[in-house]
Amino acid sequence: MTQGKIYGLGLGPGAPDLMTVRADRVLRQAKHVAFFRKKGRPGQARQIVEGLLPEQAVEHPMEYPVTTEVPFHAKEYNQSLAGFYEDSCAHLLNLVGQGADVVVLCEGDPFFYGSFMHLHARLHEKCTIEVVPAITGMSAAWTATNIPMTWGDDVLSVLMGTLPEEDLEQHAARCDALVFMKLGRNLPKVQKVLRKTGRIQDAWIIEYASMMGQSVCRLADYANPVAPYFSIIVVHGNGRRP
Amino acid sequence: MTQGKIYGLGLGPGAPDLMTVRADRVLRQAKHVAFFRKKGRPGQARQIVEGLLPEQAVEHPMEYPVTTEVPFHAKEYNQSLAGFYEDSCAHLLNLVGQGADVVVLCEGDPFFYGSFMHLHARLHEKCTIEVVPAITGMSAAWTATNIPMTWGDDVLSVLMGTLPEEDLEQHAARCDALVFMKLGRNLPKVQKVLRKTGRIQDAWIIEYASMMGQSVCRLADYANPVAPYFSIIVVHGNGRRP
Repeated sequence: MTQGKIYGLGLGPGAPDLMTVRADRVLRQAKHVAFFRKKGRPGQARQIVEGLLPEQAVEHPMEYPVTTEVPFHAKEYNQSLAGFYEDSCAHLLNLVGQGADVVVLCEGDPFFYGSFMHLHARLHEKCTIEVVPAITGMSAAWTATNIPMTWGDDVLSVLMGTLPEEDLEQHAARCDALVFMKLGRNLPKVQKVLRKTGRIQDAWIIEYASMMGQSVCRLADYANPVAPYFSIIVVHGNGRRP
Repeated sequence: MTQGKIYGLGLGPGAPDLMTVRADRVLRQAKHVAFFRKKGRPGQARQIVEGLLPEQAVEHPMEYPVTTEVPFHAKEYNQSLAGFYEDSCAHLLNLVGQGADVVVLCEGDPFFYGSFMHLHARLHEKCTIEVVPAITGMSAAWTATNIPMTWGDDVLSVLMGTLPEEDLEQHAARCDALVFMKLGRNLPKVQKVLRKTGRIQDAWIIEYASMMGQSVCRLADYANPVAPYFSIIVVHGNGRRP
């Protein structure tokens, strides 16, 4: 029997019509659809495709182990996650071994800080994987501000709020355009860095870019002490232009 | 009469089916379509939509003034380009004033180093503009390598080959994942920077990502002294992962 293939299907930032024509076509022919979700939650990727899957499609939710009580860098957390990814891969490989194609739904762009990469790293030598790129969350965020992001020679750096303050500060001081992701409880640290580097007045925070409930706010006016998971800070570049 | 509106319509990296469902829908209803091109060339954005426009759509090519003989930083070059953008805006505003909607075709993502930004900056206070984001060329490039781009806390920096060598070197030494664009005759400079910072063995060069003639090559094996306009260098991040 011929082995099936796995799609790492990028769905983009959230609005269903911001997925690509290619992703739309793959979805409408899908027989097996896998996606990550937290226990008891529908899963963001699954929500984006609501109403688009064929009725007969078999769904394969991959539920993250509950890890909220375990500190982030803990060995236990990593072991639990690694085991979860191994199990998910075994399940997908089993389907592929039976000749089935499996579409793995990915929020954003699959190769840009995506959970799918943990499957890809374990599977890419064992079966055929086709990755379909997509619009990143950051593109949707800067588009929502209605201000161009990068001009001419601008340097853009993408920084995770989980980095140490000192690292964030060094990069923020050197780059023209900035994107901060993984904010959550790291928001005060990022705000401090932007204040110290004189960029706070030029920073915007976008919640739920392109999704229901999108909001765009100057960071200086943002009152919440914690940012939601789907939030991104951008500082626009201002490079040379005719 | 009600003023029309301008779309800054992102078309993505080149493959027509990597445009969004939203862009596809806007295109198929377009009455006026504007796009940049060099004199005597079809224009990359126009080529992406070949076969998708309604028959009655009126096309408005905006032809760059010939500038190849003028040095890049020359005042003359900037004046000529500024005049060209002013004229293009006047033409679009005239259409919009007559109540027409105009779709401006944009390669890649309109707000990410896009020519459309020069129109947007001049028009956004004068008429309604709706920008539709799209997949960037760099997403198509890293997807073509079939290697995930950024993990965990990785810092990604996007650098233009037009920057001074020293600047490129400082950033390349500090970041985990790197993207170089605007290569062309700057290729030897970028190669030197990657050699000096010990990243050359991990660099890939992608020509025509997602387009006809796509090629993916380790930069260390790349023999051309000049890279084509549609080429991008990527160095993948390798951050923490379970």
